[in-house]
Amino acid sequence: MELQQIGLQHPAANLVRDIQHNRTGIPRRTFVAEGLFENNIVLESGVAVETFLWCPEAAYSDESRTRAEQLADRAKRAYRVSEKTLARLAERPNPDGLVTIARLPDWDPAEFTFGTDALVLVTDALEIPGNLGTLLRTMDACAADCLVLTNRRTRMTHPKVLRSSQGMSIKVPSLDFDEVGDAIAWLRRNEFRVYLADTDDSVNYRKPDYRGRTALVVGSERFGISRPWYDAGFARVGIPMLGSADSLNVSVSASVLLYEARARKNGW
Amino acid sequence: MELQQIGLQHPAANLVRDIQHNRTGIPRRTFVAEGLFENNIVLESGVAVETFLWCPEAAYSDESRTRAEQLADRAKRAYRVSEKTLARLAERPNPDGLVTIARLPDWDPAEFTFGTDALVLVTDALEIPGNLGTLLRTMDACAADCLVLTNRRTRMTHPKVLRSSQGMSIKVPSLDFDEVGDAIAWLRRNEFRVYLADTDDSVNYRKPDYRGRTALVVGSERFGISRPWYDAGFARVGIPMLGSADSLNVSVSASVLLYEARARKNGW
Repeated sequence: MELQQIGLQHPAANLVRDIQHNRTGIPRRTFVAEGLFENNIVLESGVAVETFLWCPEAAYSDESRTRAEQLADRAKRAYRVSEKTLARLAERPNPDGLVTIARLPDWDPAEFTFGTDALVLVTDALEIPGNLGTLLRTMDACAADCLVLTNRRTRMTHPKVLRSSQGMSIKVPSLDFDEVGDAIAWLRRNEFRVYLADTDDSVNYRKPDYRGRTALVVGSERFGISRPWYDAGFARVGIPMLGSADSLNVSVSASVLLYEARARKNGW
Repeated sequence: MELQQIGLQHPAANLVRDIQHNRTGIPRRTFVAEGLFENNIVLESGVAVETFLWCPEAAYSDESRTRAEQLADRAKRAYRVSEKTLARLAERPNPDGLVTIARLPDWDPAEFTFGTDALVLVTDALEIPGNLGTLLRTMDACAADCLVLTNRRTRMTHPKVLRSSQGMSIKVPSLDFDEVGDAIAWLRRNEFRVYLADTDDSVNYRKPDYRGRTALVVGSERFGISRPWYDAGFARVGIPMLGSADSLNVSVSASVLLYEARARKNGW
């Protein structure tokens, strides 16, 4: 594979660093995948590969070399980088010589279709990328249909979302609504039964009816779910807090609720 | 309150920094609590307070001043620090003028008693302090009796454990066994039904009998549960993985299992 060598000052290298540092002005839905594990998901999932950076000296397996050929084929642009440049661009110590700039699909709410038993998670104003990533990992595991973001505070393409989701942010479809009202209208149009996760004035999470289409809503780490969700009059479900703390980590509570819904839907 | 003022070179200040940086040579079970929230837990829980550092200029509420009096009373040693020193010692930006060095109780397995319906979590070789902390927060919330550590890789007193547990590492009793065999013998002596969390060759986690005393075992993020636990012949319970990833975050999977056991014990 003959590729032009580029250095740290090249625009492609600059873009990698801008994304890794979550700077502003990054093209929409654009993320960086490093190493074999993440790039295997990029290849499997069919996301658009904008740029591929290859450092053959840092590839320690035949698999890396095979994937490099495939990524170079798929990429709009492919370049070679030195080991020194790679070390400055990658966050992890051993990225197998593979760094790509790729783009998440633009999933369109209007074209999204659901089965009769669909399961959706809504995160309203969630702030911490690691929590979002952990949730995406659970969503993949329990076969949730999609993530809906309202009052978005963290990018789906944040490097920590990709890392903590173990690459599942590439696979789990995510829909971003500018207005809570639009998300509510869309859920209603699709005949979802919506439950707000809240420990106050709520029904024990084991009791509700999880048949049909279910949407679970969780809120921000500090402030919970925003007012418009409550104003819509949806039921509240709560995980009992039996100790001295008044809440669970949000990725834990959402995971407990997601698996409860999944278990009930599947008759476990 | 008249306290001797100390600076960054004082042994008490050095110890705070050693603990914050998780250095070696820290006295057993010794941790640092910063700010009102954590120090309220220190006061409520009755742990031993070794040293109290007070910066009245950084206290923004009457509550901080009240707690400072109580902490100074409880502490073996109390000193005053400047705002500049406080800023160098505390990890969080606004610690309300309060920093203490305190010590977790030495819970003794031999003296630990359980109800007929006890719930225990065992973490075997868990590596990431944030995962341990998140788990402790869930353990408080679901009223688990205690945490058992085997093949311990991270300190209960690591600052990240305290932060991510929201102070629950102070409240949830934890027992540390040097040998897995000793933990197994102790669980058997106390008539626990032990389940290993594993996705391979396991029973769906909704199926087992969670009556009586239940111990759930989770393993390290990379390698799972160590061999001696399997050799003991305990049953395996698994959370079905329906997507492309082969595991959940360990604090998520343990939380799903803990709440399943709690729900079944409590008849939810």
